Amino acid sequence: MNTLIIYAHPNPASFSSALKSKIEQTLIAKGDNVKVRDLYEMNFNSVLSANDLAGVYAGNTPDDIVAEQELISWANTIVMVYPIWWAGLPAIAKGYIDRVFTYGFAYKVGEQGIEGLLKGRNVILVTPHGTPKQYYEPSGMWNSMAQTQDKGIFEFCGIEVIKHFFLPMMGTEQTDREAYLNDVATYIKAI
Amino acid sequence: MNTLIIYAHPNPASFSSALKSKIEQTLIAKGDNVKVRDLYEMNFNSVLSANDLAGVYAGNTPDDIVAEQELISWANTIVMVYPIWWAGLPAIAKGYIDRVFTYGFAYKVGEQGIEGLLKGRNVILVTPHGTPKQYYEPSGMWNSMAQTQDKGIFEFCGIEVIKHFFLPMMGTEQTDREAYLNDVATYIKAI
Repeated sequence: MNTLIIYAHPNPASFSSALKSKIEQTLIAKGDNVKVRDLYEMNFNSVLSANDLAGVYAGNTPDDIVAEQELISWANTIVMVYPIWWAGLPAIAKGYIDRVFTYGFAYKVGEQGIEGLLKGRNVILVTPHGTPKQYYEPSGMWNSMAQTQDKGIFEFCGIEVIKHFFLPMMGTEQTDREAYLNDVATYIKAI
Repeated sequence: MNTLIIYAHPNPASFSSALKSKIEQTLIAKGDNVKVRDLYEMNFNSVLSANDLAGVYAGNTPDDIVAEQELISWANTIVMVYPIWWAGLPAIAKGYIDRVFTYGFAYKVGEQGIEGLLKGRNVILVTPHGTPKQYYEPSGMWNSMAQTQDKGIFEFCGIEVIKHFFLPMMGTEQTDREAYLNDVATYIKAI
């Protein structure tokens, strides 16, 4: 199995970083082929430009986008690890989607309407967030975030979202965090 | 009235650009004080960094963030014009929120829980999108996008979302686009 971890957090001491490391170790111990894209470390260019769009439409996709598309194509499973900021992806992770999931690579419009071109792949989303569960859950925000992130991005392209971990962080203690790490590792081991 | 237009699209020939121009002209004709932030033209740094976070927590917010915060403080009304990409904001616009809406400026956690600090302001969201209404509406995606964008960002900070224009573009003709421009201008004139 080829697994691609896409990770976005500015702080190497963050819990997102701990999750990424735990997931990577767990996958390697399973014997998966693992590649990691650390978007902050890569200083990934996350702003879709007019030049990018012109290149894609002319069949001349920029090299840095092609490199990421080859990794997406290689992967059977994608694990995305990012903190939820403002009910969405951090800009650098959102920009990864904006730039890499191009028309003709990730989806197209055919006779049957919109067609996802990344079928046969799974994604696992691992998303810590500061806003407490008590604020998000009763309002339906978790459902709306699952719809905009899971369906609005991945399922749109034919990728199956097999798990989305929402991990509220405010007020958590060390034991809660260890429980989160173990839950995620247990899930990763079992797939 | 002080109105701040925050605009994000890479292509000056886009319909988003036409909307931004129409809104700006309409506001000026009304006699509003208008300022425009064209995030692509500004080459706005949209990636929240470890240095940004350290500065904010140390009470030493980076100058480019402070400049935008002063504009937000100045504004009675904010008009955000951006295309919906992947059920969310383009990375450069998302990064504007990530970087400018800092803890202590836009919200804080007090004894009553999360408290928005930008009360007394309105926002109007003007968001064209490629994905057809027939795909988004029955699935509840418009509701989920309104919740993640309106509530998850602006209402969280105490800003009232007085209107969110979702404008499906696929299959539209010149007359449809003129109708969209007129609808938005009519609304802007009346507020």
